[in-house]
Amino acid sequence: MPITPHTEKHFRSSESVRDMLIGLADGLTVPFALAAGLSGAVDSTGVVMTAGLAEVAAGAIAMGLGGYLAARTDAEHYRSEWNRELRETRELPDVELKEVRDILVSHGVTEAQAADVAKTLAKDPPRWVRFMMQFELGLEEPDPSRAPRSALTIGGAYVVGGLIPLAPYFMANSVSTALPFSIAVTLVALFVFGGVKGRLTGASPLRSAAQTAIVGGLAAAAAFGIARLVG
Amino acid sequence: MPITPHTEKHFRSSESVRDMLIGLADGLTVPFALAAGLSGAVDSTGVVMTAGLAEVAAGAIAMGLGGYLAARTDAEHYRSEWNRELRETRELPDVELKEVRDILVSHGVTEAQAADVAKTLAKDPPRWVRFMMQFELGLEEPDPSRAPRSALTIGGAYVVGGLIPLAPYFMANSVSTALPFSIAVTLVALFVFGGVKGRLTGASPLRSAAQTAIVGGLAAAAAFGIARLVG
Repeated sequence: MPITPHTEKHFRSSESVRDMLIGLADGLTVPFALAAGLSGAVDSTGVVMTAGLAEVAAGAIAMGLGGYLAARTDAEHYRSEWNRELRETRELPDVELKEVRDILVSHGVTEAQAADVAKTLAKDPPRWVRFMMQFELGLEEPDPSRAPRSALTIGGAYVVGGLIPLAPYFMANSVSTALPFSIAVTLVALFVFGGVKGRLTGASPLRSAAQTAIVGGLAAAAAFGIARLVG
Repeated sequence: MPITPHTEKHFRSSESVRDMLIGLADGLTVPFALAAGLSGAVDSTGVVMTAGLAEVAAGAIAMGLGGYLAARTDAEHYRSEWNRELRETRELPDVELKEVRDILVSHGVTEAQAADVAKTLAKDPPRWVRFMMQFELGLEEPDPSRAPRSALTIGGAYVVGGLIPLAPYFMANSVSTALPFSIAVTLVALFVFGGVKGRLTGASPLRSAAQTAIVGGLAAAAAFGIARLVG
């Protein structure tokens, strides 16, 4: 038996880190691709900057509020499923007890043990419902302060990410000068971001870095091609 | 005891439906806001269309590939956690058995029952690991065909959503004629989409419709304001 204390360090990616990664990933990619795309069709750094900043504002608000509403919806969904399960334990207790037993048996518990556990749970309806929420539906109770925090984190990260590819257009005189700098600085940023993300999520940092840079590059190439065709 | 068969109809939003909702929500919002924003700063429908289509291409690819990689990452995360748990059941079986007992006890099962169940699980390591995966870590085994399906669904939905606000710019002669039509048609689309989404996710359809339209409107207003300031 081990003498040193055993602490498990599974990476349960904290929700704020995940929000930041979501905002940064899209913020680095879409404004970059839009600016690169427009560079294939228009001559004015003013137009690229205007479109780029409009996109950053739109994207940050849309993603931030989207995150806010998603967190709120999760919380409401949890509550409505909770009420439904609670009602079912009252109206159809035998059916729900059988579900408890089936879940346990499917996990390798014997019939007799499962019946025993189900009987114990039935004496405490809130626990019984919590058991069904987690084990039948896979739902965990959401944190109520998550929605506004999530909105600010995602939106802020999108703005930070979006300003990186746009910066060269603010500084250069012409689109054709700005474009290669924007591509270079953004690919580096995507690569670093992908590496950090890989490390945080337990994936291979190098592969994650390459994947992230490729996604950004493909999106920019597609935007460039489309803008050339239309513009 | 009920005589009619009892089937539970919890809405476990199918993953494809969720992917479609994600793509549509962003596709309707961001290209709309970008086009509206640019309308505040440039005169040419050509520039708005070029930027709008470049954004649609960039957004669809970024979101689609993002969905692809997210699904792949989920699968890899599951596998790496599985291997870790499996190793722990071998190296620290007593600690892991105590975790099984603690989880069951925290759900209202008695100590004796929990010990009994833990002993049964320990005889079948894959089941034991699956138990820990679901009940300790809240992870369910992901579907391997999900990644490419997810990419196409999200990307396709983004394109469909993005073409709606841009359509008026293709048809009208001037930006000032197109803008009100784009606003009108997109707010209607956001409202309908929000309503359908509310119905699918079990939220109030009317509230969901209003929220979705407000998010789109705010994003467009912010993009308009920023573009006016810069352009």
